[in-house]
Amino acid sequence: MANSTSGDSVTDRLIRVLDTFTPIRTVQTAAEIGRRAGLPPSTAHRIVGELVDAGLLERDDDRRIRVGMRLWELATRSSHALRLRQVALPYMERVQARIREHTQLAILEQDEALFLERLSGPGSGSNVTRVAGRLPLHASSSGLVLLAYGDHDLQERVLSGPLGALTDETITDAATLRRKLAEVRSLGHAVAPGYIESVSTGVAVPVRDETGTVIAALSSVLRRDDPVPPALAELRAAARGIENALGYRV
Amino acid sequence: MANSTSGDSVTDRLIRVLDTFTPIRTVQTAAEIGRRAGLPPSTAHRIVGELVDAGLLERDDDRRIRVGMRLWELATRSSHALRLRQVALPYMERVQARIREHTQLAILEQDEALFLERLSGPGSGSNVTRVAGRLPLHASSSGLVLLAYGDHDLQERVLSGPLGALTDETITDAATLRRKLAEVRSLGHAVAPGYIESVSTGVAVPVRDETGTVIAALSSVLRRDDPVPPALAELRAAARGIENALGYRV
Repeated sequence: MANSTSGDSVTDRLIRVLDTFTPIRTVQTAAEIGRRAGLPPSTAHRIVGELVDAGLLERDDDRRIRVGMRLWELATRSSHALRLRQVALPYMERVQARIREHTQLAILEQDEALFLERLSGPGSGSNVTRVAGRLPLHASSSGLVLLAYGDHDLQERVLSGPLGALTDETITDAATLRRKLAEVRSLGHAVAPGYIESVSTGVAVPVRDETGTVIAALSSVLRRDDPVPPALAELRAAARGIENALGYRV
Repeated sequence: MANSTSGDSVTDRLIRVLDTFTPIRTVQTAAEIGRRAGLPPSTAHRIVGELVDAGLLERDDDRRIRVGMRLWELATRSSHALRLRQVALPYMERVQARIREHTQLAILEQDEALFLERLSGPGSGSNVTRVAGRLPLHASSSGLVLLAYGDHDLQERVLSGPLGALTDETITDAATLRRKLAEVRSLGHAVAPGYIESVSTGVAVPVRDETGTVIAALSSVLRRDDPVPPALAELRAAARGIENALGYRV
């Protein structure tokens, strides 16, 4: 009942439909969704219709499809990681108010850094990060923190996989990355100058739960010429504040 | 193929599963999910298993189930309403820094006020609102704004329906509510003293798109004795800022 003739479950097809929406592709026709999801047109139309009826997708006046608020609501209201985000937000605002560059919170998700929050001011510099967007672990300062404190299997998986270059300065060599991770653990923070964009430097610190396990990375994206120490001091203080606030709630 | 023997689609059953999770019920067993979703145990186990495999739900060490980050990511990364939230956030932070009580952003969703964001400080007063939570249109200041500027059908639907009391002061009478909505339109803001909790007063203003349509309500939850005018002035300024920022992006 749950499986189509091609053997994938309805849940799989649902995810393939949702996966066709991206930060830069927020509106599509049902036909485009079907093509991008690899579904026959009739199947795509039926699934899209069901999702629209349920409010998980929405149809605009031009009959184009977008992700519905109901999906966000269901996904958000009972999420554990978003309780972390809610606890972290006041501390992130303080960092943001003082450093005036982007302040971000990321967690490890499927071998990538998933960004739960990003605060930016009108005068903040360049930044590719988006809320609910991802960055590679080996390239972003947040990712380097999550990887450096991640388990052995994760590290070996990333170190043995392809290490793609986002700029000329991204670490693409396993031995160099291994040394970088040791440096992160030794210093207690990650600095990633030009790894994601040549014009900016990422700075990240770990956020730990009450058992000492690193559960998130708190980061700033600075302009390349900005001094790193003031941002690091603010990030460290904010991470301690978040950890205390989480502790009180356990 | 998409329908079970009981006639509801797989999408419906999926939503019934997701709907069993709430802000205060974030972790459940598969059996509890099945019971609350009205599904036979075998069906519940299969759907939960598929959703776990897909990352939309997650299983913890005790085999209990929670909502997965993948669902949040898919729902958030391409959401239109969350672009509004992202644009609004810096302006909300300014209100929050000055008024030091809760600052909130809500949209109309299925005849209720759905809260996209809530900022609070350590010293902020009582507040029942949650991110991705809802409040009735007739009781919350945000809801009164969304209702007052909503279309005629919406207003008649709410006015003819039951108007539940959250406190002794909630408006529960259609004629009184009709007068209140006229007042909101005339003043350009809503004040809801004690409607949601007797200890607090909600204050809300509309946020409009470039065509003048009200697309959101920006609100503060004040302590009952706090003066309203300073919060109103900050909210109005923030709403103008959000509208300008949205305009530039269109």
